[in-house]
Amino acid sequence: MYLVKVYITLKPTVNDPQGLTIKGGLHTLGFGQVKSVRAGKYMEIKLDEEDRLKAEEQIREMCRKLLANPVIEDFRFELEEINPTSR
Amino acid sequence: MYLVKVYITLKPTVNDPQGLTIKGGLHTLGFGQVKSVRAGKYMEIKLDEEDRLKAEEQIREMCRKLLANPVIEDFRFELEEINPTSR
Repeated sequence: MYLVKVYITLKPTVNDPQGLTIKGGLHTLGFGQVKSVRAGKYMEIKLDEEDRLKAEEQIREMCRKLLANPVIEDFRFELEEINPTSR
Repeated sequence: MYLVKVYITLKPTVNDPQGLTIKGGLHTLGFGQVKSVRAGKYMEIKLDEEDRLKAEEQIREMCRKLLANPVIEDFRFELEEINPTSR
């Protein structure tokens, strides 16, 4: 059993209107030292798989097929082995 | 100058319909080993501040005031010192 933390970010060259809006909001609230904000997604997935390599391959495929848009987004992930009883 | 990575997650007791939908989609695609999905947000903020403690305090305040909803969400963050020229 693995807990997988998936981070999905826009590619650096892609415009990020959500991030710009958050930056604007922070400036309005007085946080003028904020130079840039990039918004992304974060997911925690529990995967019932014992083999680490197989788990990595599955997550990579999930990201390509559903979780991320490979045209405009990058993804990375971390695996952490967990006890199945914490299911 | 700091690059701050902010992770915002729903509190464990809060229902996560977005995560359930993603889980359903993954199952439909054949990833039946997915036991649970929790969806969250991820942000990368560049902050023009030299003092680490001040930077941390600012980020904490931003999370409380704008980035997270403290009633239903938890946040955590990591600071990484960066070169101002990479602005």
